[in-house]
Amino acid sequence: MTVREIIDKHPQPTSVDRDVLVRCIEACFDCVVTCTSCADANLAEPDVQDLVRCARLCLDCADTCNAVGRVVTRQTQPDVGVTRALVEACATTCRTSAEECERHAAHHEHCRICAEVCRRCEQACNDLVAAMA
Amino acid sequence: MTVREIIDKHPQPTSVDRDVLVRCIEACFDCVVTCTSCADANLAEPDVQDLVRCARLCLDCADTCNAVGRVVTRQTQPDVGVTRALVEACATTCRTSAEECERHAAHHEHCRICAEVCRRCEQACNDLVAAMA
Amino acid sequence: MTVREIIDKHPQPTSVDRDVLVRCIEACFDCVVTCTSCADANLAEPDVQDLVRCARLCLDCADTCNAVGRVVTRQTQPDVGVTRALVEACATTCRTSAEECERHAAHHEHCRICAEVCRRCEQACNDLVAAMA
Amino acid sequence: MTVREIIDKHPQPTSVDRDVLVRCIEACFDCVVTCTSCADANLAEPDVQDLVRCARLCLDCADTCNAVGRVVTRQTQPDVGVTRALVEACATTCRTSAEECERHAAHHEHCRICAEVCRRCEQACNDLVAAMA
Repeated sequence: MTVREIIDKHPQPTSVDRDVLVRCIEACFDCVVTCTSCADANLAEPDVQDLVRCARLCLDCADTCNAVGRVVTRQTQPDVGVTRALVEACATTCRTSAEECERHAAHHEHCRICAEVCRRCEQACNDLVAAMA
Repeated sequence: MTVREIIDKHPQPTSVDRDVLVRCIEACFDCVVTCTSCADANLAEPDVQDLVRCARLCLDCADTCNAVGRVVTRQTQPDVGVTRALVEACATTCRTSAEECERHAAHHEHCRICAEVCRRCEQACNDLVAAMA
Repeated sequence: MTVREIIDKHPQPTSVDRDVLVRCIEACFDCVVTCTSCADANLAEPDVQDLVRCARLCLDCADTCNAVGRVVTRQTQPDVGVTRALVEACATTCRTSAEECERHAAHHEHCRICAEVCRRCEQACNDLVAAMA
Repeated sequence: MTVREIIDKHPQPTSVDRDVLVRCIEACFDCVVTCTSCADANLAEPDVQDLVRCARLCLDCADTCNAVGRVVTRQTQPDVGVTRALVEACATTCRTSAEECERHAAHHEHCRICAEVCRRCEQACNDLVAAMA
């Protein structure tokens, strides 16, 4: 991804640490793809009925990470209160999705990978909140 | 919109008050359209440079309401912690967007309408959080 | 929804028939909610394994209608080629989703409703393409 | 991004060339971030009034690439007609966005980068359509 390049060219960049910001953006969109793929893979599994909660939480996580990924990508006149509330909620969503995927990680490789990606995004969101303080 | 009809047909509906839930879903998607339209109208105004923060916050609000509208539409095995965190963050986003639009409401009718829709969505989100308690 | 009100306040409205445009926007976002709800209801059905294709196509349709609904909501300097390509692809997506939901309409009320909403959106998209010619 | 890893773990993968598919998914989400960032950077430029069409088309492109990126990520029982229609429309959207960004590439680095990313996504979409034939 070319996230770092385009973020660096913004005419009025935010004051937040650039590395932390870029990691959060990348983690959010990685999570969009991975959660979309995991929810879809769940539908194709023979034991789909045991994976319903996993599919549902992955869909929630993909939608949340897409919205939050876009919001933190924008650097023009951000509202700190809005950004913090959304990034914190995103960390909660990623953690919950990771916990559910971890329950299936031993049986489904897509859940194992998805859990890791959700954990990385949870961490990246927490790091961004800390950097904004 | 046919929100009420489809929500009523869910095989495993959530226990939350149905009227409050439907109002929140409808308010979120009304906010997606209105904030998308207000941000776009801002771009077409001769005083676009005074409306940059308004456009930016409306884009954030549209993205947030889309994600949260989808999450609360889903009734299958929801995670209360995830839903509450997201709906609370959505109320914050709507309130901030409304406050900015209200500053331009006297000069731009689209900001006046958008502020009202954001306020309704803020209220609908707060009502849903209260109903989940 | 307040679609008509906000569309009417745009400082540089498009030349396309306003009624046709508003119907398409409303139909798209109705389809986002209904398809999101139908895909979610499918996950909660005892015969989820027979509804996998339905869930998948409803997720595709919700994503498509969200994007196309946003694009047609924007009136500032639209590109006719882009809008037409997207609205035509949206009609295809809605028709395919409707055909699958119709196969389950006798057994699942959410599929019956979703099929109707997808058909209305297919028609609204075709009407908008015709109005753009 | 971990796109390749998660795509490889799908229990019922599509028959389409895996490299071409992964490149299209990655290109779509790279385009979501880049177009979101470019539209946002446009708002912060002193000559925002010359960049209105660029901002509008980048917003359309981000929304389209998000929807299409999700659709092609799903491998469970895809509908070839839907996927082809959407990926072709995405190529059109990316090309149009690239053409507009190219007009500003000499003056704005974010437009130069965004044009390149849009062109790569246009190519990746065309390659996927060819691979589906």
